[in-house]
Order: sequence, then structure tokens, then C-alpha cells
Amino acid sequence: MFFADGLNCSIFDREVFQEVIDGGLNCITVSLGFWEDALESMDALGRFRDVVQENEDLVAIAHNEEDINKIVASERCALIVGYQNTTALNGNIRFVELFADMGVRVLQLTYNNQNEYGGSCYEPADSGISRAGVELVSELNRCGILIDLSHVGQRTGLDVIEASEMPVAVTHANPDGFVPHVRNKSDDLIRALAEKGGVIGLATYPNICDGFAETPEKWSELVAYTVDLVGINHVGIGTDHSRNIKMSHLEWMRQGRWSRVTNYGAGSASRPGKIAEPDWLTTMRGFGLIADALQSRGMTEEETASIMGGNWLRLYSQVFN
Amino acid sequence: MFFADGLNCSIFDREVFQEVIDGGLNCITVSLGFWEDALESMDALGRFRDVVQENEDLVAIAHNEEDINKIVASERCALIVGYQNTTALNGNIRFVELFADMGVRVLQLTYNNQNEYGGSCYEPADSGISRAGVELVSELNRCGILIDLSHVGQRTGLDVIEASEMPVAVTHANPDGFVPHVRNKSDDLIRALAEKGGVIGLATYPNICDGFAETPEKWSELVAYTVDLVGINHVGIGTDHSRNIKMSHLEWMRQGRWSRVTNYGAGSASRPGKIAEPDWLTTMRGFGLIADALQSRGMTEEETASIMGGNWLRLYSQVFN
Repeated sequence: MFFADGLNCSIFDREVFQEVIDGGLNCITVSLGFWEDALESMDALGRFRDVVQENEDLVAIAHNEEDINKIVASERCALIVGYQNTTALNGNIRFVELFADMGVRVLQLTYNNQNEYGGSCYEPADSGISRAGVELVSELNRCGILIDLSHVGQRTGLDVIEASEMPVAVTHANPDGFVPHVRNKSDDLIRALAEKGGVIGLATYPNICDGFAETPEKWSELVAYTVDLVGINHVGIGTDHSRNIKMSHLEWMRQGRWSRVTNYGAGSASRPGKIAEPDWLTTMRGFGLIADALQSRGMTEEETASIMGGNWLRLYSQVFN
Repeated sequence: MFFADGLNCSIFDREVFQEVIDGGLNCITVSLGFWEDALESMDALGRFRDVVQENEDLVAIAHNEEDINKIVASERCALIVGYQNTTALNGNIRFVELFADMGVRVLQLTYNNQNEYGGSCYEPADSGISRAGVELVSELNRCGILIDLSHVGQRTGLDVIEASEMPVAVTHANPDGFVPHVRNKSDDLIRALAEKGGVIGLATYPNICDGFAETPEKWSELVAYTVDLVGINHVGIGTDHSRNIKMSHLEWMRQGRWSRVTNYGAGSASRPGKIAEPDWLTTMRGFGLIADALQSRGMTEEETASIMGGNWLRLYSQVFN
């Protein structure tokens, strides 16, 4: 069974790559940035390539379906490069093609703040997609980069789904109809995403699971709800797992350079620190427990395979070029 | 009488500085950027300082009221440094203080596009001020930088006026109630601006004057309308004059690097090029004709002085520190 994690924001080293391999993962989309500009994003990519090179017996970077298949055939894990923001572009429409050349395959339109392309789920109001956002969506489509709406505002998200010629993704969020949270996605948005062929990757990140991440069995209820909503072909997993992420990384994610005051993202003043991963997923070694839980609730092997990674593989092969 | 132009986006050389002096101007706020990032904005400032240095017999850069008074006493024109966007900050809240140290005194929150701080008048929808925008407004207040709302969206503009502890400006726009145009400002916004002690600089830029820039007399009707609306103490002049601006500069202003398609700003497909300045203001030598026109319609010398520059001087002395 092909296992894929649609969004993993760990800081990778040999130990974490080994955990990923032990967990049976065949493909992982990584997050190399949150607020970094073009040069900082290139530096992060360069450094990531070094770490991958040092561990080439375990992992390799993939740019398309053929790469993924080759890497999986060699019993390694395929890594897809993504950023959780569009700051890497420095506002330059021509940088989309250049970052695509460098191997970037997933970009989130906005992270926690509004930007020149659209609104974020954490802002008090959402403008919807901007004029620059409309042009960016076309360019991302043309360059084979998957658009991620996970932290994007509701109105902007719906606009992007409509504007995009290619299917888009929510790589790591849960249905707001099941777990109400500003970071989760409305049933309407998930339906619109699915109608255009997209995939939502459900997250195990406890702050947006409201207790449902406690066991694989409880977490599988999130899957069941979402499959009921949009069918088996549009649901995947995007753990938002964050191995090696320290408080200083969290502060960077939450405040970047735009703010001097404390922001909590999906945390809160009462739990400002890094929340523990679920007991069964302290490392990616536990990933396969999700497949067991899905089959225990009656899913067929084929259905389980779609959720565990098949849907991501289909979407990636459709969007990457 | 103290003459000030609250916004002038000419490219300055000795000839243009001489025109400014001949026109009796004592103070001009210049535009050193539209889409430039931090380093590009610093480069533009460094180059501008060179040009000012080469013409130190005519002009000097002012940072506060004392500087302005000294420069005027030496019969030169005081230059206030501004940018028409916040891209110079590279999204970094700490850069506000650093650019203030470098002498920047006027920043427009957004140019023609939405950004991380708020909405623009040219976007299909305006989110209002963002969380980063609220923090930026406080920091601009603290650092003595005047906030300019000229190209900012209506909702964001109202939010900024409310959020700002210091008076703010519309440096170059006209009342939408008199000349309907997306770039012009609603009566409501102009009233709110004035109630907080701000100033609107009325523009002679023909694309947002609907014929009223044809003669100084016709243009003075714009002044009369605005004075009727908010009183004599909140109206100034911000010509938006653009000597030496070529089609390539216009394209940069309109498209920056965010778009590959033609955008027209306040122009249109039917008049895509640079519109001619009014016959009476082909150079800044004609600036004093406005004072004559205001007095011809019955304004006192004191009232005329407020419009011609006194209100800018009061606002600058209040905000710059």
C-alpha cells in the first residue's frame, strides 16, 4: 500500500528520515518555509538538498510521478518540496517558473496573514482573491505547482478553487463541520474542492483535532465524516507532524518578522508551547496504525489505500508536470 | 506664503528642482518608490541623496519642522522623503524604525494592490486593516512617519484612521463626492480623516479630476467643495505631478513585478499612455496660479495660505519627530 503524508513540517535529519521509512511512508511533502523571502527560501532548499544527499540511501526529492515511482521502487521515501507561504516569490510573478525549475511543487497561497494574493483564516476579514492572486493561480497551474489552501481564508479559498484550472489541495486541515476551528475548512469549501478533483489531507495536529487525535480509532472518525461528505477519492492525510520543531521555530511560524507581540496560531495563551504529538504518532513510525483503524471500521483495502496515499499520488500526477 | 506640494512623483534633476524653486515651492514630498523592496528602496534613497547633494544650492532633505524652517530660510526647497508603498519594509516591523532613521517621513500603506497590511482602492474587495496592519500603524505613529491613504481601499482607510493615534493623510486624491473615481475618497472618509486632524492633498493629476484640472479656476472648485466638507484646516495640495516620468516608469508603477498583463491604474485602455499635465502646470512653475485662483473666488490670504501649504506644515510638525 502506498503511504503518503501530504504535509509534514518536521525538521529532517537521519533519525527522522529513518522513522519515516520505518513508518512505511513512500512519499512526504515537506515544508521548507513560512515567511522566508526568495533568497532565504533558496537557502532553505539548498540546505534541504544537502540533508537529502547525505541520506540518499533513505530518501530522494521527487518532481513528478515518474520520480516518485522510481524512488519508491528503490525502497526509499520520495520527498516533495513545498513552502507554506508565497513569500518565496518576492511578489514576482516570474519567480513561479523559476521556483518550479528548482523543484518546488506545493505552495500555500497564504500562511497565517493576508498577503498580496488573498486572505488568511486568522485575519478578522477576508477580501477574497486579489487581482495578483488571480494571475498567480494561473501561473501556478501552468508551472505544475499544487496550490495549498490549508491556512487560506474561506472566501479566498472558494475563489481560488473557482479560478484554478487544476485541482487544488487543502494539505493539512480538518472539516470545520466536525471539529469547529478557524483553521479547519467548511463543508462548502471541501465540497467545492472535491468537485474540482482536489484532495483534503486530514491533520493529526492535536490543536485542530479537539481530542480526536487521541487514538487512531478516534481519528478515523474524522476520515469517515469527510468521506461521507465528498467520497473516498478526495480525502488523504496531511499530518502536520513537527518532529524537531522547537519553541524558537514555533515563534518564527507564529510571528515571523511582521509582529513583535505573541501570536499563538492554533495554540492559545493557556497552551502557548508546542503541543505534544499524539501518543501513537510521536514519530512517523505510527503512521500505519491509521490504515489498521480504517480497516477496523470496515473500509476495504482499496478504500484504505486511497486515503493512505493513493489520492495524493493521483493528484500529484495530475498537477505536477 | 508657504507653498507645499504634499505628493510629487517627478524624477528630479536640476531642471526640475529649478522649476520647483521658480514656482515658489518651499516644501515637496517626493515618491521614491512603488514596488521596491528594502534594498531597492535604500538604493533609490541613496541615489536621491546624491541628486540632492549635487543641487544643494536649491534643495535639501528635511526630517522635521526645524529642518523645513531652516531650509526655507535659506531660500531653498525642503524635500520630504516618502514611498508610495510599504514594500520597502520587506514585511519586517523592525524596519519601520530603521527607515525612519534613514529619513523616511511618509509611507503609503498600500499602492495599487492589496498587501499584508490592508486593501487597495483598485482591488475587487477590501478586507479592511489586517492584524499586521494594526501593528504597523502603531509603529509608524511611534516612529514619526506620516501614513498616506491615497491609494488605500475605503474600508482599510477608515480602519487606519480609527487605529491611528496620530492624524493621517490622503496626500494625493480628490473627493469622490465631487469627482467620482475609484481612486478618489468618499466624503465619509475625508470627514473621518479631518476629525482626527488629518489633511487631504487635492490632486491636479488629470485622470482623477474629470476635466476640473483644465484651469486653476476650475480646479479651485475641488478645493471649495472639500473646504465646505471639512473646513479650511484639513485641505492641502498633493499635485501627483510627474515630470520626467516616461512610459517605462508608468509600466513599473502599474505592473511592478506582480503582473505580466497590462494594468492602467487611473488610466484606461483608451488612454494607456502618460496623460499630459494641465497646460498651466506643465512644470511646477505654475503652482502659484492656484493661490491666485483661490483668492479670486474670495478666499482670504490666511485661508489661501492654509491650502497652499500651511496645513501640511502643521501636520508634518505634529507627526514627524
